[in-house]
Amino acid sequence: MSRHSIAVVCALTALVSCASPESKTAARLIEQARAGDGGWRKLAYLCDRIGPRLSGSAQLEQAVGWTAEEMARDGADRVWTERVMVPHWVRGIEKASIETPTAQPLAVAALGGSIGTPPGGIRAEVIEVDSIDALKREGAKVAGRIVLYNRIMRCNGKRGEDYGAASPLRTTGAIEAAKLGAVATLVRSLGTADYRLVHTGAMRYEEGTPKIPAAAIAAEDAMLIHRLLESEGSVTVRLELGCGTLPEAESANVLAEVQGRAAPGEVVLIGAHLDSWDLGTGAIDDGAGVVIVMESLRLLKTMEPRPRRTIRAVLFTNEENGLRGGRGYAAAHKDEWPLHVAAIESDSGAGRPQGFSLSAGRGGEEMARGFGGLLAGIGAGRIWQGGGGADIGPLSEGGVPLLGLRQDSTYYFDYHHSPADTLDKVDPEGLRLNVAAMSVMAWMLADTPIPLPRTDPSQPRPRRQR
Amino acid sequence: MSRHSIAVVCALTALVSCASPESKTAARLIEQARAGDGGWRKLAYLCDRIGPRLSGSAQLEQAVGWTAEEMARDGADRVWTERVMVPHWVRGIEKASIETPTAQPLAVAALGGSIGTPPGGIRAEVIEVDSIDALKREGAKVAGRIVLYNRIMRCNGKRGEDYGAASPLRTTGAIEAAKLGAVATLVRSLGTADYRLVHTGAMRYEEGTPKIPAAAIAAEDAMLIHRLLESEGSVTVRLELGCGTLPEAESANVLAEVQGRAAPGEVVLIGAHLDSWDLGTGAIDDGAGVVIVMESLRLLKTMEPRPRRTIRAVLFTNEENGLRGGRGYAAAHKDEWPLHVAAIESDSGAGRPQGFSLSAGRGGEEMARGFGGLLAGIGAGRIWQGGGGADIGPLSEGGVPLLGLRQDSTYYFDYHHSPADTLDKVDPEGLRLNVAAMSVMAWMLADTPIPLPRTDPSQPRPRRQR
Repeated sequence: MSRHSIAVVCALTALVSCASPESKTAARLIEQARAGDGGWRKLAYLCDRIGPRLSGSAQLEQAVGWTAEEMARDGADRVWTERVMVPHWVRGIEKASIETPTAQPLAVAALGGSIGTPPGGIRAEVIEVDSIDALKREGAKVAGRIVLYNRIMRCNGKRGEDYGAASPLRTTGAIEAAKLGAVATLVRSLGTADYRLVHTGAMRYEEGTPKIPAAAIAAEDAMLIHRLLESEGSVTVRLELGCGTLPEAESANVLAEVQGRAAPGEVVLIGAHLDSWDLGTGAIDDGAGVVIVMESLRLLKTMEPRPRRTIRAVLFTNEENGLRGGRGYAAAHKDEWPLHVAAIESDSGAGRPQGFSLSAGRGGEEMARGFGGLLAGIGAGRIWQGGGGADIGPLSEGGVPLLGLRQDSTYYFDYHHSPADTLDKVDPEGLRLNVAAMSVMAWMLADTPIPLPRTDPSQPRPRRQR
Repeated sequence: MSRHSIAVVCALTALVSCASPESKTAARLIEQARAGDGGWRKLAYLCDRIGPRLSGSAQLEQAVGWTAEEMARDGADRVWTERVMVPHWVRGIEKASIETPTAQPLAVAALGGSIGTPPGGIRAEVIEVDSIDALKREGAKVAGRIVLYNRIMRCNGKRGEDYGAASPLRTTGAIEAAKLGAVATLVRSLGTADYRLVHTGAMRYEEGTPKIPAAAIAAEDAMLIHRLLESEGSVTVRLELGCGTLPEAESANVLAEVQGRAAPGEVVLIGAHLDSWDLGTGAIDDGAGVVIVMESLRLLKTMEPRPRRTIRAVLFTNEENGLRGGRGYAAAHKDEWPLHVAAIESDSGAGRPQGFSLSAGRGGEEMARGFGGLLAGIGAGRIWQGGGGADIGPLSEGGVPLLGLRQDSTYYFDYHHSPADTLDKVDPEGLRLNVAAMSVMAWMLADTPIPLPRTDPSQPRPRRQR
C-alpha cells in the first residue's frame, strides 16, 4: 500500500472512530474536565482549610463531612457515609541527635504506629545496615543497638519502582531488629530528593516480638552517620519520641452515586483515600485522588444518556496506617461483590495521567486498551498489566477487575509522606487531565454491554505498586 | 588563510603558550589540585565533626583552633590568629501557626539577630506585601499586624542574581514594618526550591525604631497564607520565638602565610569565612570556601620557585551576622593596605569554577584576563567586572584590587542558609577545580612583576553579589 493510501485509511478510521457514540462521550467528558477548575478549588479547601487528615484527627472527620456535603451539592443521586473504626496514633515530641563522636541534631519523624521512648529518650550506639538480610548477618552485634537502615532509594523514573523494594525496611524493620535485641530503629527516609526532608509512613509490630520505637531520619543525616561510622568506628545517638496509640476512633468511608440507566444495581467504583499523613497537607497523597474522584462523579452526573450501570465514588478512610476503609468497604459490601463490574483507584498524585494499570481476567487487557484509545489524545491511553490500588485491593477476593489510574510520578517520591506534600505541588492542568481520564474510563466500564472479564480470586492478588 | 594554516598557527600559539613559565606553573597547580582529596577530607571534618559554626558557638572556636593546626601541619610558613569580638545570638524555641480561619503549623526559623517574643508568643492578623514600597502604601493598616513579606525569589540562573534584590526584605524588613506599628515580620524564605525549607539569615534593627521579632517561613507556608487571605480575607498567626542576643563573644580570624621569595612584605590575600548559619552544617556557605583557601595555600607552599610576593590565607570569623572578621582584619592591617596587591574571596559554594569577578583600576581587567586564560582549560577563565566578597570588601577603602572566585551557583540558593546546607551538596571534583582556580590566580597575582592596578577608594565600593 502506498503512503498515500495508508494516510487515507488512517483518516477514515479516525473519522469513523470520532463519530462513534463512545468517542463523542469521551470528547465531551474531556472537554468539560479541561474547562473547569472545580477540582483545584476542592483540593485547595481540603489542603488549606482542612489540612492534614491523619486517622483519629478532627480534620479527617471534617473532611468526611465536607466531602459528603460537596458531593451532595454537586448533584449526586445519593450520598452516604459508612462507619469504620480506625487506629488513632498521635505524634508527640520528636528529637534525635548524634552524641558521640560529635554533637549534631538529626532531622527526625516518628513512623506511624511507633511506640514512644521513655522521657529523655534512648541512647545507644548505632549499627548500620542496608537490608534485612544484612541485619541478620550482623547477628549478636545488633543487641542493645539502634539499627540504622541506610538504603538509598533510587531516583524514580516514571513509576517509582524502587518504593516497593525500599518500604519493607520502614514497615517491618522494627520487628526484625527487635528479634535481634535492638532498642530502636532509624530508617533513611524513603524519598528521592536532597532537601533534608523527613518522610514518615506506616510501620507495624508483630505478636510475640518486643515493640521498639521506630523513626525516619533525613537522607543527609543517614549519610552523616555513615561517614562518621566509617571515619570514627562508632556513633552514639539519642532518640526521644513522644508518640503513641490511643483507643480506636470512629471514622467513615464517604460514598456517592450516579445511578445507571439500565442496570443500577451493577457498580463501577471510583475511589481514592481521604486520610493523609500529618507532616504535610496530603495534596499529592491523596487529596488529588479525592478531588479527581469527586469531580469525575460531578461530570458523569451531567451526561445524557447516563451509562448503563451505576458509578459509585468511594472516599476511603484510613488507607495510610491501617487500610480499615478499604477492608471495611469490602466487608460491608460482600453481597455486592458480584455486582461490582470494576473498581478504579487514584493514589499516585496529580502528575499528567499516562493510563491505567489493570488486573482483569483473560481478554480484559484488549478491552481496556480499546477504552484507553479514547484517552490517547491526552496521553493517557496506556494499559499496564497488574494493578489496582490499596483500598480497592480487598475486592480482588471477589474477582472484581481492578484498575489504577497511573500518573507521571517522576517527582512523586520527592514529596511523598513529607512536610512538603502541599497544594503547590499539584499542577492544575494535570488535575484536570486526570479528571478526564478517570471519568472517561469509568463511563466506558459502566456502559459497555459486556463487562471486563473478572479475575480468578484463587490466583495471587496483584501487588500494589505504592 | 586556509583552514590548515589557521590550525598550524593555533597549534604553534598553544605550544608557545604551554611552554611559558606561567603556563607550566598553572599546569602543575591544576594537576596537583585535581589529584588530591585533601579538600574533601578537610570539609568533611569541618561539617561532620565540628558542625554548624554560628558566631559565639563553641563549634566556631573549635573551627578556629582546628584550621590553624591544619594549616601549620600543611607546612605554612607562619600561622596565627587575630582576636575579634563577635555578636552572640542564640536560637531558641521557634513555633508559628495559623490560628484562623483554620489551624495549621508553619515551618519557621528565626532570623539571626531577632529578638524573641514573650512566652506564649504574639498573635495578630497578617498583612501581606511583596516589597517595602508596597508596605509603605499600606500605611496605617500595618499597625498591630504581623507583616508577611511574600516575594518570590526567582529561580536563579548561574549567578543567583535575584538574591540581591530579595534580601533587603529579610535584612531591613523589620525596621520598615516597625515604623508603621507592626508587631512582627515573617519573610518568605529566600530560596529557590520547593521542599518546605526554611532559610535563615541576618536581619538588623536601627536606633530609634522599635525592635520587633522577625522570622522566615517556608515558601509553601507563605503561599498558604496568600491563598487563605485571598479566599477568606483574614488570617491570624501566632509566632513564638525564644531567640535572643547574649554579651559579645571572643572569636578570631585565622591567618597563615607562604612567604614570597622577593617581596615578602607584599601580600596577595586569599580568604573565605569560617562561621556559618546554625540550621545546616555550612558546607556550601562557606565551608567549601574555607577548604579551597586551605588547600590552595598547601599547594602553593609546594611550588618551587615560590612566587615573588607573600600569599596570605585569611579565614574570617563572623561574616554572616556582623562582618566583624572582615572589618577587624581591615582595621588591624590598615598600615599594610598599600602592601596588599590583591585579595580574592571564595563564598559561593563549590559548584564548578567559572572565573573571577574583579574590582581593579584601569587596565586590570586585561591583566586578569591574561591570568584567566591559564584556567580556560578547566572552564574557569572568565573575568566579570565588579566583584570581590563581603569579608575583603573593607579593603576597598585602601584601593586593594578585589576578586571573587565565581562558582556555578545554579543550585546554590536551593540550599543556602537552610538545614540542607550539608556536605553531600558538595561535589568533590568541583572542590578540586576550585582549588586549582584559586591557587593559579593567587600565584599569578603574587608573581607578576607589575601588580594589578589599584582602585580609586573615592569611588563607590563594588556591590556584593551575595
